[in-house]
Amino acid sequence: MHKVIFDTDPGVDDALALLYLHKHPQIDLLGVTTVFGNAAVESTTHNALYLKQVWGLTAPVARGAAGPLQPDAQPEAWPVHIHGHNGLGNHPVPDVLEATADTREAHQLIIDLVRAHPGEITLIAVGRMTNLALALQHAPDIAGLVRGVVLMGGAFHVNGNITPAAEANIWGDAEAADIVFTARWPVTAIGLDVTTRVEMDRHGLDALAHAGGADADLVRSLSQEYVDFYLQAGHKGMVVHDCCACIALTRPELFQFERASVRVACDGVARGMTIPKPEGMAFGPSVWDDQVVQTIAIGVDASAVLADIETTLAG
Amino acid sequence: MHKVIFDTDPGVDDALALLYLHKHPQIDLLGVTTVFGNAAVESTTHNALYLKQVWGLTAPVARGAAGPLQPDAQPEAWPVHIHGHNGLGNHPVPDVLEATADTREAHQLIIDLVRAHPGEITLIAVGRMTNLALALQHAPDIAGLVRGVVLMGGAFHVNGNITPAAEANIWGDAEAADIVFTARWPVTAIGLDVTTRVEMDRHGLDALAHAGGADADLVRSLSQEYVDFYLQAGHKGMVVHDCCACIALTRPELFQFERASVRVACDGVARGMTIPKPEGMAFGPSVWDDQVVQTIAIGVDASAVLADIETTLAG
Repeated sequence: MHKVIFDTDPGVDDALALLYLHKHPQIDLLGVTTVFGNAAVESTTHNALYLKQVWGLTAPVARGAAGPLQPDAQPEAWPVHIHGHNGLGNHPVPDVLEATADTREAHQLIIDLVRAHPGEITLIAVGRMTNLALALQHAPDIAGLVRGVVLMGGAFHVNGNITPAAEANIWGDAEAADIVFTARWPVTAIGLDVTTRVEMDRHGLDALAHAGGADADLVRSLSQEYVDFYLQAGHKGMVVHDCCACIALTRPELFQFERASVRVACDGVARGMTIPKPEGMAFGPSVWDDQVVQTIAIGVDASAVLADIETTLAG
Repeated sequence: MHKVIFDTDPGVDDALALLYLHKHPQIDLLGVTTVFGNAAVESTTHNALYLKQVWGLTAPVARGAAGPLQPDAQPEAWPVHIHGHNGLGNHPVPDVLEATADTREAHQLIIDLVRAHPGEITLIAVGRMTNLALALQHAPDIAGLVRGVVLMGGAFHVNGNITPAAEANIWGDAEAADIVFTARWPVTAIGLDVTTRVEMDRHGLDALAHAGGADADLVRSLSQEYVDFYLQAGHKGMVVHDCCACIALTRPELFQFERASVRVACDGVARGMTIPKPEGMAFGPSVWDDQVVQTIAIGVDASAVLADIETTLAG
């Protein structure tokens, strides 16, 4: 069993990933923490609570950061053309929910759970890395207490998706991402190098809903505008970014990895770029020296990943 | 015939490139301009004059920039472990030469020659881009008067060689490189993506000297420590960086290219990184927008390049 905290900004593909974690027989979902990104944190928290309620999640949902670590960072426009005005593909979400958020802030829930289960928890982080960075800043000891961190973020040998240099999750809080990549904990990064190859078309989404019942049908329903966006962008279907990070934990053999130290550019035109120094390669003195060597996905068996999602949601 | 100005910092591989240009039947070498980089500009100018004298070049040699555009940039340590203490592989160079430098500064010689031959000159730049940037700053009209710019510099889909992000020629004056890539003239960039694949071993260097007589034998002689450096770094022989830029002019069919706008990171950990926005790819608004689409080498027929060098030097 994998004990997991899911740090998320639902977010259409976040919803699929959350259902995957909920349904997977080897995942013990201990907590859900929310962050700004695909929408404002008020929306992503409300969406997480909505999904907790309709899917019957038992894990607490704790609200996290409303903006990046650096207080003077430029405010973001929410990607309403991708995730809808409510962050959940414009799927109707009730204003009033029975489910309520944990009283703790997200970073505190992370700290409490990690300390309660030393060496056992994997953090799966699929939004801005702000909550993880705050947890590290408040409790540096957790770096040695987590089993690992799997994150969806970065663009290592491909272009970004916000700028040519930067992927959205890293670009949205570059300072936090640099803290996460250079902390002394093991990070596995699932970036655009692999996620953009995992495309679920409408046929696959319908099959998913058919196999997975009402829970999966909600995912199908809220993903419709998200599919439209990716089809218009030239993809074969919706890009399954966040679920890839979950599957990198449950089925790592479906990915190819390389080992590298990673620094995140925080300044100028490269802001948000994830720059790897591959293990064993020598350069002049640089800020990559003596950093932890992390794990970066560079290849994926996309059809096997899609099949695993369907199998898991059929549960 | 290609009218050429060669902007260079000899430099061991610069010397080979200079001899290639001198010997090539389709190259009309109109000027040589020097810049800091592989050694101090005093050394690279002295070395260029030495090579002019021993090889009987008729083109004027004009001394250029001693340091980067930005006056507060951190001073560089010269790469004496690669190009020797004198910049020419520790090959003995007389202190006193008959050849003398042009009275003009490098950027002025570039401006004068380009204006004298409108639409005809290709600038081949294989050092820091400082002289080209100064020429553009002093005479913006030259952007529309050159036939093209071919530069050795950058690392587009591979790591750098100074830091994981940056190749030496770009890192050494990132601001100048950004000016050159975004000027409204056609740039062809020959970066580490291709140059590191063009390796000449000692056997090849001996064959070159045998085929090319005394002129080529000087190249063989001054390249010995340079070969040692690259063998120790895990290469099969010396990496023929600068001559690749010359051959991209004479034999472009030996390369594969992509088209992209390029910005150079000038700040933080990414300083010196050349970041391409491939033509036709869409992103959010960024500083790549509305920039000139340039040409970047991404593949090379290395054995054909090596054969072309031998054929040309055998003359």
